[in-house]
Amino acid sequence: MELRILGCFSSTPKLNALPTAQLLEIRNHLFLIDCGEGTQMQLRKYKIKFTRIKHIFISHLHGDHYYGLPGLINTFSLLGREADLHVYGPKGIKEIITLQMKLAKSWTTYNLFFHELNQSTSQLVYQNDDLSVQTIPLDHRVYTNGYLFKESKSERKLNPKKAKEHQIDVAYFNKLKQGADVKNEHGQLIKNQWVTTNGPPAKSYAFCSDTAFKEDIIPIIKNVDTLYHESTFLEKHKHLTQKTKHSTAAEAAQIAANAQVRNLILGHFSTRYDDLNAFTKEALQYFKHVELAEDGKLFKI
Amino acid sequence: MELRILGCFSSTPKLNALPTAQLLEIRNHLFLIDCGEGTQMQLRKYKIKFTRIKHIFISHLHGDHYYGLPGLINTFSLLGREADLHVYGPKGIKEIITLQMKLAKSWTTYNLFFHELNQSTSQLVYQNDDLSVQTIPLDHRVYTNGYLFKESKSERKLNPKKAKEHQIDVAYFNKLKQGADVKNEHGQLIKNQWVTTNGPPAKSYAFCSDTAFKEDIIPIIKNVDTLYHESTFLEKHKHLTQKTKHSTAAEAAQIAANAQVRNLILGHFSTRYDDLNAFTKEALQYFKHVELAEDGKLFKI
Repeated sequence: MELRILGCFSSTPKLNALPTAQLLEIRNHLFLIDCGEGTQMQLRKYKIKFTRIKHIFISHLHGDHYYGLPGLINTFSLLGREADLHVYGPKGIKEIITLQMKLAKSWTTYNLFFHELNQSTSQLVYQNDDLSVQTIPLDHRVYTNGYLFKESKSERKLNPKKAKEHQIDVAYFNKLKQGADVKNEHGQLIKNQWVTTNGPPAKSYAFCSDTAFKEDIIPIIKNVDTLYHESTFLEKHKHLTQKTKHSTAAEAAQIAANAQVRNLILGHFSTRYDDLNAFTKEALQYFKHVELAEDGKLFKI
Repeated sequence: MELRILGCFSSTPKLNALPTAQLLEIRNHLFLIDCGEGTQMQLRKYKIKFTRIKHIFISHLHGDHYYGLPGLINTFSLLGREADLHVYGPKGIKEIITLQMKLAKSWTTYNLFFHELNQSTSQLVYQNDDLSVQTIPLDHRVYTNGYLFKESKSERKLNPKKAKEHQIDVAYFNKLKQGADVKNEHGQLIKNQWVTTNGPPAKSYAFCSDTAFKEDIIPIIKNVDTLYHESTFLEKHKHLTQKTKHSTAAEAAQIAANAQVRNLILGHFSTRYDDLNAFTKEALQYFKHVELAEDGKLFKI
């Protein structure tokens, strides 16, 4: 799993402080998470093949999380895209996009599917053989979801040499990878663990932006490998979190600690701060494995 | 008059090919013309004081001409703007912006006025003591207007020394600047031309993007100092202009020649062309004073 931060700042985009957008690659599937203004330019910068993006997950309808979406949808058409595109986001997102298309008298060259969300509990929104995506209901000024991406349990790793020694027909190799015991050519039962080893562990990534401190999310994101949690403010500006429904670095770290995640990435920094190291310092008081998001940065999960 | 090109390419924004946006300064008034995605980042780049922009003119509702507008309107609020903002554009623009604000539960901190256009003939849309702005109805796939910016006739230049020699009271100086003859302290009539000279000539700028070749605009833009005319294509791709309702460099130059403008700026280049010099070459066959728009370029008018 690989996470590319395309933008990680809050609210007012500047040349070197782009609004939220992330690209998550899981077993060759590419997902766009939020799509602030300028996202398509960032995708060009990192030479992302546009057709690889088939699913876009929007957390909420504040501009810094989706103002790049109409342009991206439009550009896909101008490039003659034919592959389906699925957009997940709060109720209303379809009306915004279709109104703009109607007024531009310009429809997509591809099938565009909207999956509008309005549930206040976590729901499964997408699933394929390799992974699942579920919502993480957050607490913000408007209806907001984070998203939890979980790899499916990976296949067991087959040792072909050992399988051969046990005289197992290749027709059974897939069954072995799925963990089953099989019979060999002589009808003898071969235990799965004799010929396979554990596959790579299934990874998980939780994206949580924007939200006030919300402990309810802990059971949902428990034990994830990487948690991205917004930290718009430092504790010295905690008084601003109430009205704005954002979090501090300390709060993000407490969520990470209580959810026993492996790594925490902080992001959605207010552009009022010149020195972002203060975010790390503050978070380290509560949780050890802290990294800062950075426009363009690549994280291996 | 000073024109800053913020973006001058068509359709699909890339890092070094931004969609249409221009900033026009006339006697200290600052006007934004079109507002493609990323315009607010360009405004930051050129250190434009956001509050100086009080009027935004949108030509049409294709994304590459206005997808930066919601973000800019939003950023103005986040910066605590109090000054009124006026947006001129096709009918529908208000619905787009207000729908997005409604779903974001976020309203502007300032008065936002929409001036929606739907006339098919040229109309005066804005006027103050220094200038006027009128529409230039264009021929595109959706309802589109260019805009003609005309300085008011400037005041006559008063020679204070000569006015003193003629014993004219300072109370009459403004009248003199406006071109009137006045009486001096002894009741003698002083001819205006004895004490004043011509002020600087009134300048004009016509913005025409996007449009098919349309000779109807010639009377409107006749004799302007600078004409920006789109040239999405070269003549070798003329067959594309019919369906897309765009112009070639040759067509733009013919408009410039027939309208007897002083200078022509070409822009809105399709990103299919690597060498833009071909646009100059093609246009020069019909009109002598041709320049190419360029992201960030400043033109003195």
